[in-house]
Amino acid sequence: MAETVEISRPQPGVVALQLNRPQRLNAINEVMRGELAQTLAGLAADSSVDAVILTGAGRGFCSGLDVRDFGPGIPAATAPAIDRMRFQESMAALPQMIRALPQPVIAAVNGPCVGAGLALCLAADIRICADATTFGNAAILLGLSGAEMGMSYHLPRIVGTSVAADWMLTGRTVSAEEAERRGLVSEVVDADRLFERALEIATTIAGLSTLGVQLTKRALQANTDAPDLAVAMELENRNQVLSHATEDAAARRQKWS
Amino acid sequence: MAETVEISRPQPGVVALQLNRPQRLNAINEVMRGELAQTLAGLAADSSVDAVILTGAGRGFCSGLDVRDFGPGIPAATAPAIDRMRFQESMAALPQMIRALPQPVIAAVNGPCVGAGLALCLAADIRICADATTFGNAAILLGLSGAEMGMSYHLPRIVGTSVAADWMLTGRTVSAEEAERRGLVSEVVDADRLFERALEIATTIAGLSTLGVQLTKRALQANTDAPDLAVAMELENRNQVLSHATEDAAARRQKWS
Amino acid sequence: MAETVEISRPQPGVVALQLNRPQRLNAINEVMRGELAQTLAGLAADSSVDAVILTGAGRGFCSGLDVRDFGPGIPAATAPAIDRMRFQESMAALPQMIRALPQPVIAAVNGPCVGAGLALCLAADIRICADATTFGNAAILLGLSGAEMGMSYHLPRIVGTSVAADWMLTGRTVSAEEAERRGLVSEVVDADRLFERALEIATTIAGLSTLGVQLTKRALQANTDAPDLAVAMELENRNQVLSHATEDAAARRQKWS
Repeated sequence: MAETVEISRPQPGVVALQLNRPQRLNAINEVMRGELAQTLAGLAADSSVDAVILTGAGRGFCSGLDVRDFGPGIPAATAPAIDRMRFQESMAALPQMIRALPQPVIAAVNGPCVGAGLALCLAADIRICADATTFGNAAILLGLSGAEMGMSYHLPRIVGTSVAADWMLTGRTVSAEEAERRGLVSEVVDADRLFERALEIATTIAGLSTLGVQLTKRALQANTDAPDLAVAMELENRNQVLSHATEDAAARRQKWS
Repeated sequence: MAETVEISRPQPGVVALQLNRPQRLNAINEVMRGELAQTLAGLAADSSVDAVILTGAGRGFCSGLDVRDFGPGIPAATAPAIDRMRFQESMAALPQMIRALPQPVIAAVNGPCVGAGLALCLAADIRICADATTFGNAAILLGLSGAEMGMSYHLPRIVGTSVAADWMLTGRTVSAEEAERRGLVSEVVDADRLFERALEIATTIAGLSTLGVQLTKRALQANTDAPDLAVAMELENRNQVLSHATEDAAARRQKWS
Repeated sequence: MAETVEISRPQPGVVALQLNRPQRLNAINEVMRGELAQTLAGLAADSSVDAVILTGAGRGFCSGLDVRDFGPGIPAATAPAIDRMRFQESMAALPQMIRALPQPVIAAVNGPCVGAGLALCLAADIRICADATTFGNAAILLGLSGAEMGMSYHLPRIVGTSVAADWMLTGRTVSAEEAERRGLVSEVVDADRLFERALEIATTIAGLSTLGVQLTKRALQANTDAPDLAVAMELENRNQVLSHATEDAAARRQKWS
């Protein structure tokens, strides 16, 4: 039984993964890091899951690394570089695991989404947020690089290099309105409708062909990195040949014709 | 004489290529695929053409692959994988040919722009649309990958990875207003002014130096894929040296000074 | 004493670099090209500088290359290709030097920002502009490629490939409002508040850890070009390990806890 993340199945095929340390705005401590990694590994291997909603308990989404109360596993600034490197890599593994899930992930950002929390959010495929949500990364205010856990990869590709530089170099807080305007989130909804809306999207996706959806997610990721259009199309063409021949696709074609 | 595409020359140097199966919302069947490929090959080789407008006859731009009435060339889902692969490649060749045209292509999207139709539209350089236009790809609703014919290459580079994932993973319909707001189209205009506006843009381009325009189109494509700024500048620098020494450029400099 | 660029220190750690040929809307001539290169080299080596504001004297930001009055160093169109190549490279070196500065650069675009001036602006990290500013590149109107001095690298990554093609292929003028809407500039402010606002941003950045800021700037640039997320994270992880162990970061952590 996990203590810092809560899993539920609000609809067939849909899992909601809730970060659950509300008294700390769901800051990530050692227990949560481990439970999150374990939970994500389980979801990746669970073929009954078609879509994942990532959200937070209480007033916040995730306030980042719990520096005050992380647990014994956090190395001091005076620890050997290799230990501090391993720690940073263990944090960076979390957004990598979210991104590597075969199922699409919808981040339902219910409140402050900061630092490592922003990194988890950026690793999702689709983002929606409540109207009072704020986004930011305070790392640069603490003397660290503002680029961590994938942010300097994701932000330029989501909002463009100019907006990304403005956000990352100043460490400023970004409102839900600005996040929507710049394409960081697809929709801003009332806080009390947020989960319902995320569930609508997840249920829509869960109703589609599992293979078709998973090929689409991976093609989008792979071809964001593709060196050119021709290479991108090689992957796309094989995906269509693969998915076209399934019984599932045959049944769906029948229904539409 | 082509039966499914219509070519006109509304202005010197400007060709309008109209998809012309209005009774099927200009869905692509076997004849159209062949005629489109042949027409595009002709345009690529025609040095009297400076700009191309791509649009649809009747109420729609292009409703995608005509699955019901494609013709004998479409392989069944049970056909050998290599035959289905060749078919998919023959469809993917269409947006590749549009993109490979030396002349800029302006998509004047006059109505529903779906599936393979969206792929043709994305391969254009500039997109404008009528106010009631909708964009989408239903492939994912049919059990296929939503990424096909270049979409997973183009969409992340046009609207960012987050908006692209929202559109592609849900298979939802995107309005003209949303398309404009996210940068998919440059302008939304009244349906009855759409062609006129596309012609204005095409005529502006046709009035510029042919070499300058074609070098610009190709530099933009190549340097979207360039590994870094230094490599991008090598191409840019040679383009300026090339275009600076022409008689055409000399005449234009004279006119402006 | 430079004659065409003016350097001031409006705040500790902040340098304002003003292009200063207002009678020519700060067009770049031979003297300015040299003085700008020298000034940028000096700033790069000056560890007392934490942030740079790039702006123009008088009514404009920079109207591009001063073709009429550049000086003897500009080769004629009939000069050997290698000489014209060297000239183009010497112009392209300016935005490269701005981008290569370890310190963040805030472009405060106070008026027309055209051609080579747009290229300087695009090489900055953050852009804000006055409400009556216009952006554009007339090169394509003069028979040249519209892609020069980094534009075909930067524009697709800032505003997406579709908007970039619209701007570059037509050579049209872009308003401050459109620039903000498309993400080219972060903010549009009243002309008489522009410098003040740029100074606020620069002062915020100058108040942060110098190492943290410079690692962030470089990570953003490097990881815009990174082939995938895993590679991007290798750089990010090392940046955090590096910056975490400094006395500066320790002092900032203390202040926040």
